[in-house]
Amino acid sequence: MEKVRIGIIGIGNMGSSHARQLINKAVIGGELVAICDSNPDKLKWAKETLGESVKRFDNTEDFFAFDNIDAVIIATPHYDHPVMAIEAFSKGLHVLIEKPAGVFTKKVREMNEVAANTDKVFGIMYNQRTNPLYQKLKDLIEGGELGEIKRTNWIITSWYRPQSYYNSGGWRATWAGEGGGVLLNQDPHQLDLWQWTCGMPVRVRAFCGFGKNHNIEVDDDVTAYVEYENGATGVFVTSTSDTPGTNRFEVTGDNGKIVIENDTLTFWRNRVPERQFNAEFTGGFGSPECWKCEIPINGKTTDHLGIMQNWVEAILKGTKLLAPGEEGIRGLTISNAMHLSAWTDNWVDLPMDEDLYIEKLNERINNSKFKKEVSNVSNLDISGTF
Amino acid sequence: MEKVRIGIIGIGNMGSSHARQLINKAVIGGELVAICDSNPDKLKWAKETLGESVKRFDNTEDFFAFDNIDAVIIATPHYDHPVMAIEAFSKGLHVLIEKPAGVFTKKVREMNEVAANTDKVFGIMYNQRTNPLYQKLKDLIEGGELGEIKRTNWIITSWYRPQSYYNSGGWRATWAGEGGGVLLNQDPHQLDLWQWTCGMPVRVRAFCGFGKNHNIEVDDDVTAYVEYENGATGVFVTSTSDTPGTNRFEVTGDNGKIVIENDTLTFWRNRVPERQFNAEFTGGFGSPECWKCEIPINGKTTDHLGIMQNWVEAILKGTKLLAPGEEGIRGLTISNAMHLSAWTDNWVDLPMDEDLYIEKLNERINNSKFKKEVSNVSNLDISGTF
Repeated sequence: MEKVRIGIIGIGNMGSSHARQLINKAVIGGELVAICDSNPDKLKWAKETLGESVKRFDNTEDFFAFDNIDAVIIATPHYDHPVMAIEAFSKGLHVLIEKPAGVFTKKVREMNEVAANTDKVFGIMYNQRTNPLYQKLKDLIEGGELGEIKRTNWIITSWYRPQSYYNSGGWRATWAGEGGGVLLNQDPHQLDLWQWTCGMPVRVRAFCGFGKNHNIEVDDDVTAYVEYENGATGVFVTSTSDTPGTNRFEVTGDNGKIVIENDTLTFWRNRVPERQFNAEFTGGFGSPECWKCEIPINGKTTDHLGIMQNWVEAILKGTKLLAPGEEGIRGLTISNAMHLSAWTDNWVDLPMDEDLYIEKLNERINNSKFKKEVSNVSNLDISGTF
Repeated sequence: MEKVRIGIIGIGNMGSSHARQLINKAVIGGELVAICDSNPDKLKWAKETLGESVKRFDNTEDFFAFDNIDAVIIATPHYDHPVMAIEAFSKGLHVLIEKPAGVFTKKVREMNEVAANTDKVFGIMYNQRTNPLYQKLKDLIEGGELGEIKRTNWIITSWYRPQSYYNSGGWRATWAGEGGGVLLNQDPHQLDLWQWTCGMPVRVRAFCGFGKNHNIEVDDDVTAYVEYENGATGVFVTSTSDTPGTNRFEVTGDNGKIVIENDTLTFWRNRVPERQFNAEFTGGFGSPECWKCEIPINGKTTDHLGIMQNWVEAILKGTKLLAPGEEGIRGLTISNAMHLSAWTDNWVDLPMDEDLYIEKLNERINNSKFKKEVSNVSNLDISGTF
């Protein structure tokens, strides 16, 4: 294969952006050959913007019956990600799903099982994994430079969304349509990077505000506490109603502290590990000598384009995926656990009770009295978001 | 009265430091006339350092029988603060207590009731209230500049204490001797400044590690989540085992965000309040214009000396107290609520069940199997701490 013939399902904010990049030949080895969306306005947009050479489908049955496709990018509302991925795998297609991997882990687990039984390439749009700051953090932790992790603190309140954002789509910020709020729509990148660099927690206690600051029914404000297997603890604070928000990720280990804030990574490194100092020092007040280290950060964030390029190269040349689709379940597990903890006002141990999650989610879908006033906004300009 | 004749009970780390400042005439209008400590080594130190003119007592009965005292500074272990204060008020003395106000709120409430029925001046050594950074934060919040508070986040993990610190005193870090760990010994300043600037929470959910990273039985690692009456939320993360730690206090309001870190206060101010922007903006993605403002910080931290001077002036001239003793109960209430939440693995609503707290504390005192290896360290050098 010399070229990967790509179809895109879902021409919303993200799908239309990916389509534009593909049609502009930004992804070497990737060619957009078809799109699918049930909305006539999106099909009209596609015709005008992408040209007649890109086949347009208004239903997935016809789309999946189209033979001249090797791979599909799934950019539908979240619930459909695993449903479409499973369908695509059954048609022998390579798959790249938008984040989150789905709404509830049970369905995502099913998708992963199907994926495991194919030889197709399965990626997820965790474009923030292309950010060299987080790659370096992962490198420093995995390389043992930080020592055993003691504490992780991520304040990620820089996801401000005004009411008009929520009014831009009927599915948005409803239990039935989106299945969650800030945790499911805005935070998947951070939830993934958190576990990608620091590992998965073993239990979660979360406090969520649902429609606290917006006229929506899902979470727009979350504080969560987690514990890791080694006894380390963590905090995750997020919101779509703080402005200006904060994006500050701090990880403390035996050898010091790393902070990522303002697009900068700083490593404060102890000359002697803390546990060793603690055992040996006899002076009462005192602490290890600490060096503020400037860590070189090479490369740049290649973002959605980087993920698409990596996925295409994995298909064409067997290149290793930076963001394997199977890993999407991890961040979603944390997200589901946070919701469930808030709903039950209790701890959630991992692995969690996936059926209980679905039961509680369905209660919210069935009891929803939410009527949304949808404004006539077409695709939003996503520059500046991810 | 032209001079306040001061006695000090407890010549440990803090008491000896205050004695030195008084004997050096650092407090205008204040004169050290007596000290009291049961430890012969401390009395020997007092004789050699403070001179013969300062009367020495090895028991409080004799100390309180000494007539030539107007006021007393109480720098004993925490449990005795309210006990001694009540005794001092009954002798007609003005009182300045070290922090914390006590170990459990019920006794502190009793102290406050006694104080309310005297005309004596009652202060508490909340020396961090003299820090112009926190004074400015309080000013900006009370002046309405920040708008209604939405979120408070204090990461105060810069209280590193190695094991040898805990080994320096037999009473330290035991339930019977000290009644708590980092919350009771190191954090009272931050717990006070938190409520002083942002108000009291209405409920608390805390997660404490007890002897998690040290050979002690009390808390050395705490993460707490709080909720305020207006719906705002807060997080308080503290530890004596992180090094280098963090001291970062962030308060978010309708009009922006204030961060105090690295001895600097920064105010990001929205041109239009967030709630107004949220209601009026129609563009989907967007946020209010925000200005990073340099706020002038005048004056300097006068610390223990400032509190002692203010207390002496209150006695001599009726000057308003910066840190009234009665307010010590507030930070202690948050501290007690955090302990109780961790012990019961549940929410604690404020006002809390004070008797339940005492019951749970006594269980820990009675069940303590903790034997401490006390090293032969005399008073520690407290320069660099507060």
